[in-house]
Amino acid sequence: MQIQYELSTQKMISIIKIGGAILENKKSLDKLLNLFEKIQGKKLLVHGGGRSASELMKKIGLTPKMLDGRRITDDKTLEIVSFCYAGLNKQLVAKLQSKGVNAVGLCGADFNCLKATKRPPKPIDYGWVGDVMKNDVMTENLLDLIQKDIVPVISPLTHDGNGNLLNTNADTIASVLAQALQEKENVRLIYAFEKIGLLKDIENENSLIRELNLVDFEKLKAENIIHSGMLPKLKNCFDAKKEGVKEVMICRWDEIVNRNHKTEIFI
Amino acid sequence: MQIQYELSTQKMISIIKIGGAILENKKSLDKLLNLFEKIQGKKLLVHGGGRSASELMKKIGLTPKMLDGRRITDDKTLEIVSFCYAGLNKQLVAKLQSKGVNAVGLCGADFNCLKATKRPPKPIDYGWVGDVMKNDVMTENLLDLIQKDIVPVISPLTHDGNGNLLNTNADTIASVLAQALQEKENVRLIYAFEKIGLLKDIENENSLIRELNLVDFEKLKAENIIHSGMLPKLKNCFDAKKEGVKEVMICRWDEIVNRNHKTEIFI
Repeated sequence: MQIQYELSTQKMISIIKIGGAILENKKSLDKLLNLFEKIQGKKLLVHGGGRSASELMKKIGLTPKMLDGRRITDDKTLEIVSFCYAGLNKQLVAKLQSKGVNAVGLCGADFNCLKATKRPPKPIDYGWVGDVMKNDVMTENLLDLIQKDIVPVISPLTHDGNGNLLNTNADTIASVLAQALQEKENVRLIYAFEKIGLLKDIENENSLIRELNLVDFEKLKAENIIHSGMLPKLKNCFDAKKEGVKEVMICRWDEIVNRNHKTEIFI
Repeated sequence: MQIQYELSTQKMISIIKIGGAILENKKSLDKLLNLFEKIQGKKLLVHGGGRSASELMKKIGLTPKMLDGRRITDDKTLEIVSFCYAGLNKQLVAKLQSKGVNAVGLCGADFNCLKATKRPPKPIDYGWVGDVMKNDVMTENLLDLIQKDIVPVISPLTHDGNGNLLNTNADTIASVLAQALQEKENVRLIYAFEKIGLLKDIENENSLIRELNLVDFEKLKAENIIHSGMLPKLKNCFDAKKEGVKEVMICRWDEIVNRNHKTEIFI
């Protein structure tokens, strides 16, 4: 039974998405990367970095502008954001290499793996922000790398095909990658964050919702139990699930291997 | 004759190294990348970025410290330098993609392609600075990419294998890449910069030295005709040539395709 389980795990591609908060804490990050190394089989890491970008912007006297949790990305903001994300990306790669993970740091422009659509300037002009869908993912080169036990580490930057980088939501990147790769192999998509999963009462870990389907999601949304930042994250989860991604879940970053606590998504 | 020439070009790997000055001028950069696209056969681009890094450092109130043209790289400097180089790298990749070049942006940590040695702290502690040699280059994955017509774009960051990025001279990276790849295929190494080549009189383009061998180099060095920044660049050229790199030259960035004017290096 044990062997069978291990084999089925080996055959899956695990996509782990980590947020900006984990990247900032050196100790947590180290622990997280040790756990990431332990994940069996093929894998990808997708990371954010918004907090570091905002910090760097403030240091050079720019004011980060957010609207509905999305960053208004003008020319100067794009430069700082792209420096920050690309730099964090290479830091992660160096750390993973030291742990025996043969990583390679990519963004959507790299062999055109994620060509996005610049968000239209109306009703709100977000600037250099890109939106991606399943069909925007070119899986060929990613799969080539994964087959050779190379681990892509993907930053939240895409490109428009006209020479510009685009600031793109990391949760959405993880979701569309999962959707596109699921066409080739079974994918497990794990959103790692600070909580043990989706909680009915955010202060009470005993209120973990272990399974969430679309009907319950709509109900909890109507009751305002699920709101703000969790809404787009869960939309990305359901989008992945609707497109057939084998396993989709949210869990705390220190449970990405054992996953004793998690919210698993179903449709 | 024409066909034969084209074939022999196709079989070579061209490594073009561009400096920080070109990266800063949008118009020149665009022209350079258009020319780079026109280079036949397999190719790699290696870039610097020191000027942009110094600029960003100043913006956040840090003072760039240079010694013999090398940057003293403390913790904070490494962070800015790595953000800057990695960000410029992805900007280049996005621009190349828009010109039909299937680029991928890498540093030495990516699939461990350049593991450097941190420079010893004595006599001078340069901090997070790495030195690389031919044997530090892992060519396998680079060659895999090149075979598939993917163009590696390489930033001047390596890693120490212990989780740290290292600030590394881009000229040296270009040279050691050429040396290591020459073991597999013929390599043409082109250092692109602001002048049409090595000039006896820096103010006079008619004083171009079209060919330079080691004996003449030592002579010109003794006469103080070659000095300061040109010395390490030429050392990298001769190192490459000594290790058998087929063609090594210095030329102006707008002549990387036709190479009517150049200083070619011989031993």
